[in-house]
Amino acid sequence: MSEIRKDPILERWVILASERSRRPHAFLETEEDKDRENCPFCEGREDMTPPEVDSFRNSGKADEPGWKIRVVPNKFPALRKDNNIIQSDIDSKKTIPGYGSHEVIIETPHHHRSMFEMSTEEIELILKMYRKRYGILGSIKGVNYIQIFKNHGRKAGGSLYHSHTQIVAMPIIPGIIKEEIQVSKESSGCPFCRELKVARDSGRVLIENSGFSVFAPYAPIAPYELSVYPVKHLSRFEKIEDSSLNMLARTLKDIFKRYGNFMGKIPFNYYIHTSPVNLKNEIFHWHLSLMPKLSVTAGFELATEIHINSISPEQTVEELSE
Amino acid sequence: MSEIRKDPILERWVILASERSRRPHAFLETEEDKDRENCPFCEGREDMTPPEVDSFRNSGKADEPGWKIRVVPNKFPALRKDNNIIQSDIDSKKTIPGYGSHEVIIETPHHHRSMFEMSTEEIELILKMYRKRYGILGSIKGVNYIQIFKNHGRKAGGSLYHSHTQIVAMPIIPGIIKEEIQVSKESSGCPFCRELKVARDSGRVLIENSGFSVFAPYAPIAPYELSVYPVKHLSRFEKIEDSSLNMLARTLKDIFKRYGNFMGKIPFNYYIHTSPVNLKNEIFHWHLSLMPKLSVTAGFELATEIHINSISPEQTVEELSE
Repeated sequence: MSEIRKDPILERWVILASERSRRPHAFLETEEDKDRENCPFCEGREDMTPPEVDSFRNSGKADEPGWKIRVVPNKFPALRKDNNIIQSDIDSKKTIPGYGSHEVIIETPHHHRSMFEMSTEEIELILKMYRKRYGILGSIKGVNYIQIFKNHGRKAGGSLYHSHTQIVAMPIIPGIIKEEIQVSKESSGCPFCRELKVARDSGRVLIENSGFSVFAPYAPIAPYELSVYPVKHLSRFEKIEDSSLNMLARTLKDIFKRYGNFMGKIPFNYYIHTSPVNLKNEIFHWHLSLMPKLSVTAGFELATEIHINSISPEQTVEELSE
Repeated sequence: MSEIRKDPILERWVILASERSRRPHAFLETEEDKDRENCPFCEGREDMTPPEVDSFRNSGKADEPGWKIRVVPNKFPALRKDNNIIQSDIDSKKTIPGYGSHEVIIETPHHHRSMFEMSTEEIELILKMYRKRYGILGSIKGVNYIQIFKNHGRKAGGSLYHSHTQIVAMPIIPGIIKEEIQVSKESSGCPFCRELKVARDSGRVLIENSGFSVFAPYAPIAPYELSVYPVKHLSRFEKIEDSSLNMLARTLKDIFKRYGNFMGKIPFNYYIHTSPVNLKNEIFHWHLSLMPKLSVTAGFELATEIHINSISPEQTVEELSE
């Protein structure tokens, strides 16, 4: 059973997920892409995953071929639904059971199709599934925050090459989200709206359309990091309208075209920060952060939590504009 | 010129070090160990590094063979001495010049000799050089914190295989250090001394001698993470006495023997947290943290700053005790 522990000194939680446990040498695997013959995410191998919990389909029934997008529980979940629900005050606890949900969204039936190759329509469908699962997981009792994230490529932590996204519903609200909300409360006006204006004024915007602005953040932690903000203040990703979803798909398609042209099909991560499930106000401004995985977290970052980045945001915009 | 920028929303600094800049594809190098024929840290190739600033030697003059340990400026420094010194209040700033010092301690003249192979005497000499450089860098005007850290192996961020440690002297105090000091101030008694007692009481101590205790922390962020605390409260690593230095070397030797036996010569990071240079009180309790590099930082960690760890501290102690 997994467990969520708070550091005795720092305001920092850790998820101890012993079900994911592997022998030390298994950690050190280096193969970038195991034989697609063995890939459990490919169409026709539906029996190699836990039974699906959701899908968008052309044809077929659950766990049969014919799907366009398929959602399955993570085989090695960090958090599980059958752990006890937390009712009392979480912040005062040192440890809580690893309660929550951990799902995998298999984005395509095709092994070698990634965000670098997908059409706007394919990306749009993935985003629709994000929105749908957010809604479903958000209604689970005891869930306070839902994290969508993507690891593409072994170097970015993707244990399988086949394109997929993970979604974790959890009882704790991450410290970074709490801090973003706190700053939003203390600011006069939304600090994210303000940062978007600053990015425009200082030439850090790479792409802007009626729905979204893509800019290089002022203090990026990774080379070629990009932020995607809805232009109009919107607190929750899961409240996104269909027309915006389409615009977001176009925007992502544009980003991956630029990344691909400039760097090739690099490993990358992205994630969405959205309002905690039970937060009543609309103070938050949801956003998506994208980071190519070009360097490893090393001793300096571990020691200081300060990132050293060799690519300035100004350089990012200049190079990706070409 | 490098620059230190504060995130506009989060309490988070980033070092933009454009001098370290590489083309995107250079980031993706995967060779674990470039030909030792080209290693600039090997004895006899002293002309391949910037001129040395310190050494312990058997024979020879600066930048000649005959050294046991050699200290050189980092060829691609994150921070530089010739940037302007900051005099005014740093916390209120959005950006400051990348002022400081970034040195490399080349720990041995031998290419294939790492902490897994070194004798207690060799490790002791390295620790003596840490103490010496702390003293020297700490007297530079404008330096407020000094970070010692080690990246061993490409996966742990070591750009060269040849065993070395980096030391960064900087104008800002990392947030994590500030938090550790704040908690120390607010606690009744030293929280590190308390945690050491809790570790003993709960069977998380792996090694303890008259000088040091090695234990698996309650909420470890990495598999097989270990903490090394001086048993007696001591605020600054750089005040360590000779007898303790010897004891620390023996302790590290023991740890690397256990790591090596259990996992082989894995990539790893370690770092020392010590009191900020100009802090007047002795409230801090210095410590060393060691982390095998067995997994990569992925989307979930980037998004939430919560680590998922598949090895519990209890398991760490059990497995490394064998």
